[in-house]
Amino acid sequence: MTLAAVIHAARDLRIEEVPLGEPGPGEVLVKVEAGGICGSDLHYYQDGGFGVVRIREPMVLGHEIAGRIERLGAGVVGLAVGQTAAVNPSRPCNACAYCLRGLQNHCLDMRFYGSAMRFPHVQGGFRQKLVCLASQAVPVPDGVSVAEAAFGEPLAVCVHAVNRAGPLVGKRVLVTGSGPIGVLVALAARRAGASFICMTDLADEPLTLARRIVADATINVATHPEGLLPYEVDKGTFDVAFEASGSARAFVSALVATKPRGVIVQIGVGGEMTIPMNSVVAKEIDVRGTFRFHEEFATAVGFIASRLIDVRPLLSATLPLAEAVQAFELAGDRKQAMKVQLSFA
Amino acid sequence: MTLAAVIHAARDLRIEEVPLGEPGPGEVLVKVEAGGICGSDLHYYQDGGFGVVRIREPMVLGHEIAGRIERLGAGVVGLAVGQTAAVNPSRPCNACAYCLRGLQNHCLDMRFYGSAMRFPHVQGGFRQKLVCLASQAVPVPDGVSVAEAAFGEPLAVCVHAVNRAGPLVGKRVLVTGSGPIGVLVALAARRAGASFICMTDLADEPLTLARRIVADATINVATHPEGLLPYEVDKGTFDVAFEASGSARAFVSALVATKPRGVIVQIGVGGEMTIPMNSVVAKEIDVRGTFRFHEEFATAVGFIASRLIDVRPLLSATLPLAEAVQAFELAGDRKQAMKVQLSFA
Amino acid sequence: MTLAAVIHAARDLRIEEVPLGEPGPGEVLVKVEAGGICGSDLHYYQDGGFGVVRIREPMVLGHEIAGRIERLGAGVVGLAVGQTAAVNPSRPCNACAYCLRGLQNHCLDMRFYGSAMRFPHVQGGFRQKLVCLASQAVPVPDGVSVAEAAFGEPLAVCVHAVNRAGPLVGKRVLVTGSGPIGVLVALAARRAGASFICMTDLADEPLTLARRIVADATINVATHPEGLLPYEVDKGTFDVAFEASGSARAFVSALVATKPRGVIVQIGVGGEMTIPMNSVVAKEIDVRGTFRFHEEFATAVGFIASRLIDVRPLLSATLPLAEAVQAFELAGDRKQAMKVQLSFA
Amino acid sequence: MTLAAVIHAARDLRIEEVPLGEPGPGEVLVKVEAGGICGSDLHYYQDGGFGVVRIREPMVLGHEIAGRIERLGAGVVGLAVGQTAAVNPSRPCNACAYCLRGLQNHCLDMRFYGSAMRFPHVQGGFRQKLVCLASQAVPVPDGVSVAEAAFGEPLAVCVHAVNRAGPLVGKRVLVTGSGPIGVLVALAARRAGASFICMTDLADEPLTLARRIVADATINVATHPEGLLPYEVDKGTFDVAFEASGSARAFVSALVATKPRGVIVQIGVGGEMTIPMNSVVAKEIDVRGTFRFHEEFATAVGFIASRLIDVRPLLSATLPLAEAVQAFELAGDRKQAMKVQLSFA
Repeated sequence: MTLAAVIHAARDLRIEEVPLGEPGPGEVLVKVEAGGICGSDLHYYQDGGFGVVRIREPMVLGHEIAGRIERLGAGVVGLAVGQTAAVNPSRPCNACAYCLRGLQNHCLDMRFYGSAMRFPHVQGGFRQKLVCLASQAVPVPDGVSVAEAAFGEPLAVCVHAVNRAGPLVGKRVLVTGSGPIGVLVALAARRAGASFICMTDLADEPLTLARRIVADATINVATHPEGLLPYEVDKGTFDVAFEASGSARAFVSALVATKPRGVIVQIGVGGEMTIPMNSVVAKEIDVRGTFRFHEEFATAVGFIASRLIDVRPLLSATLPLAEAVQAFELAGDRKQAMKVQLSFA
Repeated sequence: MTLAAVIHAARDLRIEEVPLGEPGPGEVLVKVEAGGICGSDLHYYQDGGFGVVRIREPMVLGHEIAGRIERLGAGVVGLAVGQTAAVNPSRPCNACAYCLRGLQNHCLDMRFYGSAMRFPHVQGGFRQKLVCLASQAVPVPDGVSVAEAAFGEPLAVCVHAVNRAGPLVGKRVLVTGSGPIGVLVALAARRAGASFICMTDLADEPLTLARRIVADATINVATHPEGLLPYEVDKGTFDVAFEASGSARAFVSALVATKPRGVIVQIGVGGEMTIPMNSVVAKEIDVRGTFRFHEEFATAVGFIASRLIDVRPLLSATLPLAEAVQAFELAGDRKQAMKVQLSFA
Repeated sequence: MTLAAVIHAARDLRIEEVPLGEPGPGEVLVKVEAGGICGSDLHYYQDGGFGVVRIREPMVLGHEIAGRIERLGAGVVGLAVGQTAAVNPSRPCNACAYCLRGLQNHCLDMRFYGSAMRFPHVQGGFRQKLVCLASQAVPVPDGVSVAEAAFGEPLAVCVHAVNRAGPLVGKRVLVTGSGPIGVLVALAARRAGASFICMTDLADEPLTLARRIVADATINVATHPEGLLPYEVDKGTFDVAFEASGSARAFVSALVATKPRGVIVQIGVGGEMTIPMNSVVAKEIDVRGTFRFHEEFATAVGFIASRLIDVRPLLSATLPLAEAVQAFELAGDRKQAMKVQLSFA
Repeated sequence: MTLAAVIHAARDLRIEEVPLGEPGPGEVLVKVEAGGICGSDLHYYQDGGFGVVRIREPMVLGHEIAGRIERLGAGVVGLAVGQTAAVNPSRPCNACAYCLRGLQNHCLDMRFYGSAMRFPHVQGGFRQKLVCLASQAVPVPDGVSVAEAAFGEPLAVCVHAVNRAGPLVGKRVLVTGSGPIGVLVALAARRAGASFICMTDLADEPLTLARRIVADATINVATHPEGLLPYEVDKGTFDVAFEASGSARAFVSALVATKPRGVIVQIGVGGEMTIPMNSVVAKEIDVRGTFRFHEEFATAVGFIASRLIDVRPLLSATLPLAEAVQAFELAGDRKQAMKVQLSFA
């Protein structure tokens, strides 16, 4: 047994024991040390789910995790006990039609940690120990912290979003929504060659951080609703927009400020949106959804390992597992927190 | 002066004289012989415009036109008097930033025949004679009729839509909306290599024609709302959908039946749409607007000239200019007409 | 045991018995009825191999095969005894890094019928009966002959080549080399929307066939070495060239006649080539290799089944298995034969 | 008149007066302050040309230039006297078929500074003063030196090469040839998101610099001809190779070490190459030429201006115009010099 953060219903998050097996052939035992709280974790905690996805049985939360390799199952090569490693929460079947086309993130039999999309739910990674496939553990070198490694998953989401956008070298980029995903997608866009990055939000605090570490310009569209006007000339001036807020208003602002033949990558999740489709038509915009990641997990951990992307400024606070409820409350306060992690020591 | 079909206001379409110049250097005089009535012509006739575009001065309608070269201006080569030619209604500036990137359909100074988008309006082609640039006239060989040539413009719109979709060889294609644009886009998709084409509509008559000339399957979604269900398995079975109705309900049906990483090309114009953006995200759909055409005009006329695409079955009726009002009424009746043309002899 | 065409060494082709198993779960027994002789079969027969690939043990030749389903192994669904089916000779592992990226034709553990690339060699399909995976058998409807179905494999090669080329709608295409692959790639390019197709060869006979069924223009570059000159103006006039001869001279002719930013798909196999790389640089040509196929097998059989591509004019002669040596001799004579098939009844 | 470096024949480089006009409408007068010596300048100096391009009249050399805006012609906006600016040596016609498709680097009527490709030759930029279009002058902010700005042109070549390669985020990249173009292309590839960059050369000195500023691994293939062997496993391990040496041997080394479906961007110019085309076929490699640049000039200057790419370590030496011959001799010595610039003060 190992201690874990288990969601039972909205606002009912308990620290309790869950089963723990032994690492079989090709598996490893990981001592989890850091786990980032994601927006979906927050939705489970605050609302018991999102959209049609609801908690129907107790589920360990968490999919942004990293730790140390504690024991190797039979036949595992390429990993060593004691190494710090990010854990990939994605377990596609590698046998369905989508997997065999390289689209593992659309696997028809996906098991993704801490997700209630299927039933029984897939248990998550906010736990002291975890057995996973050796291939899920991507090591980082000494000198890179476990806290940084735990950014591997959200950064992978954002590197995937950047791959969905197409080439960004020399491009002008808009990011609407400056939470953790917005800021990480901006860092990934910069890494991919974006020349100019403008970010928007409804709060000053995340914009201040964004301006400090990645954005060339920031606009609080709550206090300056006209802030994007200068970018709307000549049918729009951004080559690519990443919509990271899930808000229809933000989507429309991106639509107006994006050039004809530009790309809007929708990464934020928000439900139904009412949009002026005629503008999509007349400007020949590409609206592209982006969902999770596949090979980008290794890419993202590599960028963290080499510090080609430095995620450290995003970490707002780390709380022990025992204070998980406080951690979730803090993570839900955008004025105080960008990314909150749990520690499991 | 030459006789033309001039819209003054909704339901106020008059046959009257309009000015006619002489062909200058690089220009030709065309005796217009056939002009297809398009959806936007109908909107001007029925409603005095669409969206924010309104008739503010008398305007000759028409942009689907073909005729015979009657006189060549100075320096014109490559055309001969007497040739049948389709007339390209698009006149980009070829000097703005978009033109110099090959995106002439997004020209910042576009003049497109029969369009009230700018003021003064750009006069259209429903007239007995027309002076245009020699480069606008694309000849067809003997044996191809002027009526066929007048399909060059709407087919160009559809070839452009197909180009926006990306490669179609061996792909499974859905077309929602089986009016002239839906049927022409299906013909263009077939020409581009689509293996299976399913078409939907709310009326039987256009579906019957579609089934006869291009569709592998047709569904009247008014009478058989469950008709697309078999195509929704495994997250969707179409590689590409062309949404040619402008209806949000049709868009959603395409979204559900399109594979993850599939493409929905939005070609129909309808205004605001409320869409489940979370499905766009989770399935990583590409929603791509498509608008007019550029080099596809020559391509489309070429397909008509070689009969690699046979547009003849689409022509429902031809009425003389004097009966323009009747022609517009007929064109507005989807149960009776696919494409109605005016003759100007 | 079943009778087969077995190559022992150059010019040593024997008709002899080879082992035949029972169809296991997920497998089918196919009564092979038609087998097309391919260029690589000819190389084994004429030279004992090609490049570094040599016959090192007796090997059944053949990978362009079709027949009738004779018995179904346990659990096979979707196929029926008596159906005509094309047999896909490609058996990727579906587990290596390439397969899991959708690049099965680069499988690190590929088993391809009738190939001496690995040892022990993979036995081929020129045999009266064959046990294969049910997923290898792609049925065609009644009315489509087994001879047509046996074109599934070479057409798949060509559909893949067309996919490698990118969109062809409205494009001007050059095909150098008008053997079976050249003609099939032209048919596939036409199916994909090519507007103009010019073909070259050193012999009149294949060009005559090509002109009759697909080419808009043909040039015998042996007798008319200047034939491509008109296509070389303005830095070249073809958007895409398919080099299907394996000859450096043909490659260079394609390079000169292809537009800047054009694509040359190299499909012909010939060994080392000396090419003016500075032209590739200055014109920014894309030279793309193309090798076998994967999902295109089903696509190609589908095109044959629907007659969206009609392969029947390519079949020059059909000889019984007993006359395999004569069939190979005939297949090697470009003046007499386009495609020669063996029958195994 | 203004003083310039004029090539008359191989090894005949003279400092002499050339005409200088006044800046007309839309033009500016630039006081040139820095000019980088490029490989083509060296070819003119050492050999009187390259390939079929030969010096046929005296020509001012130089196309990597920057200076200060000294006077504005009528109607020039967006530039100020005294600003440091990089000068774009490329003057496409913006009217031919290629320009109107956004392919200005293939302009049918290109005027490129210091090029003997057309006759009369286009005079170059190694001169004290220059009149050019305002649109050719791309300013950099205070704090960025004119020497850095003069890297705008070669960096533009390399950013274009990177754009030709397609997305590089997380990709493994090989660069063969570590002269100025090799190193700049590596910097551009890193900026575009490359995760791992390996560089080769025949000399240690440029590799030492490359290792210090951009490369993750370097191999002197003269002294360690087996150095790439570990990268050749599993059909190759690089996603993209940039061949920047112009040597067939380097091309072949890239071909062997590049993954199936990988891309080799040929940027080095060397003449004919004998290559194993069968490997291009069997591995489905894309060999893409890259030539000059267009919109990448502004992108490159922007990267220099923001120091998102730091070119300063490449500058080996700066010599005054009076010592141009010594500068050319030094520039030709790869053991001593990476990039040599002339100063014109």
